[in-house]
Amino acid sequence: MHMSIVGITMGCPAGIGPEIILRHALRTDSSTSPTPVILGDLGVLARCAAELSLDVALSPWLPGTPLPVGALPVIELSRLPARDLRWGTPTIATATAMAGYIEEGVRLTRAGILDAIATCPISKAALQAAGYSYPGHTEMLAALTGTPKVAMMLAGTRLRVTLVTIHCPLGEVPARLTTAAVLRLIRMTQGSLRRDFALPQPRIAVAGLNPHAGENGLFGDEEGTIIQPAVQQARLDGIRVEGPFPPDTVFFKAASGLYDAVVCMYHDQGLIPFKLLHFSDGVNVTLGLPLVRTSVDHGTAYDIAGRGVADASSLTAAVDLAAAISANRTRFDQRP
Amino acid sequence: MHMSIVGITMGCPAGIGPEIILRHALRTDSSTSPTPVILGDLGVLARCAAELSLDVALSPWLPGTPLPVGALPVIELSRLPARDLRWGTPTIATATAMAGYIEEGVRLTRAGILDAIATCPISKAALQAAGYSYPGHTEMLAALTGTPKVAMMLAGTRLRVTLVTIHCPLGEVPARLTTAAVLRLIRMTQGSLRRDFALPQPRIAVAGLNPHAGENGLFGDEEGTIIQPAVQQARLDGIRVEGPFPPDTVFFKAASGLYDAVVCMYHDQGLIPFKLLHFSDGVNVTLGLPLVRTSVDHGTAYDIAGRGVADASSLTAAVDLAAAISANRTRFDQRP
Repeated sequence: MHMSIVGITMGCPAGIGPEIILRHALRTDSSTSPTPVILGDLGVLARCAAELSLDVALSPWLPGTPLPVGALPVIELSRLPARDLRWGTPTIATATAMAGYIEEGVRLTRAGILDAIATCPISKAALQAAGYSYPGHTEMLAALTGTPKVAMMLAGTRLRVTLVTIHCPLGEVPARLTTAAVLRLIRMTQGSLRRDFALPQPRIAVAGLNPHAGENGLFGDEEGTIIQPAVQQARLDGIRVEGPFPPDTVFFKAASGLYDAVVCMYHDQGLIPFKLLHFSDGVNVTLGLPLVRTSVDHGTAYDIAGRGVADASSLTAAVDLAAAISANRTRFDQRP
Repeated sequence: MHMSIVGITMGCPAGIGPEIILRHALRTDSSTSPTPVILGDLGVLARCAAELSLDVALSPWLPGTPLPVGALPVIELSRLPARDLRWGTPTIATATAMAGYIEEGVRLTRAGILDAIATCPISKAALQAAGYSYPGHTEMLAALTGTPKVAMMLAGTRLRVTLVTIHCPLGEVPARLTTAAVLRLIRMTQGSLRRDFALPQPRIAVAGLNPHAGENGLFGDEEGTIIQPAVQQARLDGIRVEGPFPPDTVFFKAASGLYDAVVCMYHDQGLIPFKLLHFSDGVNVTLGLPLVRTSVDHGTAYDIAGRGVADASSLTAAVDLAAAISANRTRFDQRP
């Protein structure tokens, strides 16, 4: 059986990325788990291991050569001097290195050397300070792969959510909603559930925007004017989708097993219930890319970097899900 | 020991109110639970009991006379003819009766004959069709008691939330937020936690409005301009309050025990996490009234009225909490 090779980009070297990579390696059994390959900095990982007494053997690895046995393979993409690295303090040097891990991860995945990438958190501010104009991680991946439309899914064992709008003020959400955007996300959600999650007939719920889904127009009319037409068109396309539902009950129903995913209108509508159920083991999946990319669903956590208290659960879930999606896509695409 | 007498208003006679009252009576032990007294219609309850085979003895009761033993006391406030009652179909007659239960509940509670009221769901549309101009249940109680400012708390064993804005379109939320409203709700929340929930030093979290609580103004600035000044003033007043926090993690923290309540900026911000944790046993508590009022946190459920499948968990939780709040307030007000 082919075991997927998942590349883990180290993220910001001054954040908790190095620590969670080491903790992930310690907790996983290489005979049953996907083989991870680190895109990062061997010296930083070694220093982190020494400082936090995390006993992980590290081995430099060159793509194309056999994987090392009994050691964590690291593609060395930077050699940051110790003096340039203070936990919690990103620099231009760490940010430039961080961007390089992502660029090489994309290149190796598209070349078929890696099957998928799972990304550790980056600092958006440091990325921009280093001269990269991407607003964030996902936009950088979209640009590197020439993908016009990507979407964010948060996936856990009890709940999956996708987001029509993401990082904008709450007050701007209504103006940003369009029937086309809702319809596109319903289609992308269905496509991912079928191809990535191997659910042949997924059931999708769509949340309303307003309290009680507007209560027949009493508290807003976007349900009728924007969301409902998208749901109707998707149903005409044969997608098993229902809604718009009152937002305060749809997540309980989905978590109870009635729906495979909830299409959400704004960031916190989806993230509040998701993080309540999956505070430490949630995974961010980018839909629409020509490669498999998952991510931890937390940030660089500079406040605890280097302190030895980081939790690798989300990274482990992200690596496992990246491998599963990769295998599912291969099977899906090879259907007769 | 004084056992609190909780009056249960029957709500809309054509909804699930009668059924959940009977189921509540069946599941509670009168030796340990608060004594409920029904403000409603004995004939409707008897017909419901017969149709659904719910074996509950009912007894008419006049305030001031001894409570019956072994039967559910019912203050008869209407005698709706059977022909006027179809499950799921409110009429002017049912709505007028429904309003009367609430009016008498307020009167008897203020007179000290009842210690608290727990209300079954009403139909806002039917209330208005019957000539009552109140937008809802809570506004009616505020008007009947001459209370200028009330607030809604949703209370459960794992989470309590209060709401700065409630029933308005999502897009109108930012314009409705004011520092004064946030500050008032922090104070009302703290007051209720101390007096109603017997928490001498309650810890309160305040949620932000925008994703990531605005991420330093990147996704909205209401955190800095509106919410933060209210939190600061409340802290100067000696209230243990923190925030504004990113909305997607604050509820997990509160449910983990770090906070006794979360002050929320809009309906679904509070209701989504609350209903995820307390789908069937949540209680709505009205803060600010001169009497103790709790309510089920669901509606009339006309779609299932008379079908025998209603769940009384929320009513039981509402009655128990009403009795507990009544006892706590008495102790609080009698402190030396």
